[in-house]
Amino acid sequence: MRIPRVPNVVIRRLVLYLRTLVDMDIRSDENLFISSQELGERAGVTAAQVRKDLALFGEFGKQGVGYHALSLMRELQAILKVDRDIAVGLVGAGELGMAMTRYNIRRYNQNPDYLFRMAALFDIDPEKIGKDVEGVPIFPVQEMEERVRELNIQIMTIAVPAAVAQEITDMVVRSGVKAILNFAPIKLTVPSDVHLYSADVSLDLQQLAYYL
Amino acid sequence: MRIPRVPNVVIRRLVLYLRTLVDMDIRSDENLFISSQELGERAGVTAAQVRKDLALFGEFGKQGVGYHALSLMRELQAILKVDRDIAVGLVGAGELGMAMTRYNIRRYNQNPDYLFRMAALFDIDPEKIGKDVEGVPIFPVQEMEERVRELNIQIMTIAVPAAVAQEITDMVVRSGVKAILNFAPIKLTVPSDVHLYSADVSLDLQQLAYYL
Repeated sequence: MRIPRVPNVVIRRLVLYLRTLVDMDIRSDENLFISSQELGERAGVTAAQVRKDLALFGEFGKQGVGYHALSLMRELQAILKVDRDIAVGLVGAGELGMAMTRYNIRRYNQNPDYLFRMAALFDIDPEKIGKDVEGVPIFPVQEMEERVRELNIQIMTIAVPAAVAQEITDMVVRSGVKAILNFAPIKLTVPSDVHLYSADVSLDLQQLAYYL
Repeated sequence: MRIPRVPNVVIRRLVLYLRTLVDMDIRSDENLFISSQELGERAGVTAAQVRKDLALFGEFGKQGVGYHALSLMRELQAILKVDRDIAVGLVGAGELGMAMTRYNIRRYNQNPDYLFRMAALFDIDPEKIGKDVEGVPIFPVQEMEERVRELNIQIMTIAVPAAVAQEITDMVVRSGVKAILNFAPIKLTVPSDVHLYSADVSLDLQQLAYYL
């Protein structure tokens, strides 16, 4: 049922649909159905868009009843490949890095549908190396390649100062990681087979500013 | 030229176009034109989508030449209402809140097109109240309503633990702020005239997981 090349914007909406379902705590009701209208309203898109997006993957809601919520959630998790644990690493155990790590650990421990497991932190500060954050060890950046292989790290989060972010990114690429989440406020360059996503709080603020 | 109700998804794309232009550092070339093709590629959408979105606001690129980059940036800033300073507050001067604050201050000081100015922090910890973060004062949450008025705070960022996030949100709403950026990992309820946007790093991670 997988369509080979799904546009990024569709993936982004599927992620929103999935989050909406996870937030609705639908596990408690095995017989819950949700209409494209309701799902769209909660996710902030039109009902027609919901139907169009889900039809891409062969998901057709029943006329007048909608989608079986739990099945749809499982299906979206499979499409988005978040139906298994994914080991996440983070470079830069500074203020932002530590906050992100604690947030992720808490989320992972509390929600069985949150599958991003913090596996390792990397830093250059000898004061930090060898310590741990709620059980997640801090390694020297020099050990990145080795630890990525050993721990099967699939996504690396970058939370280092902008000035060294490209250098660190090159190191992450050399370690074999194919997905990078960047928090440094700078445009990074990666090879075409590496997927880079830059989180940017200014995007969230700009989005809000429109509604002032 | 403003269309009264622009769908959220269009606004989100306009924000991406604007960020793309800001990242391209187009100020250095007053005569730069950018095609819908190039803008789309950099922003991750199709050229047709770019043309359709911008046509909504009466922006028509010249055939074979594209859009005048600097004018388009100014136009997008005006549409998105980020052509003036916007005072931002933050509740919860913990690890995440401090990291966010420092990031915003640095961004604001370094980029003349970044217009979100940190105006105040709020916390309940007597150890923190009265101190400041790079010149931004930390006030007791009890003073929120007064400080919002005094400093004309238009966006409030929430970086408090999930357990108290709704209570704090109610307080923010009472203070008269109409736009809230939430970092607490919990679904919040606000009146219909308040715009809430929940940042969620798990969305970024899920987006990336698809490409593994």
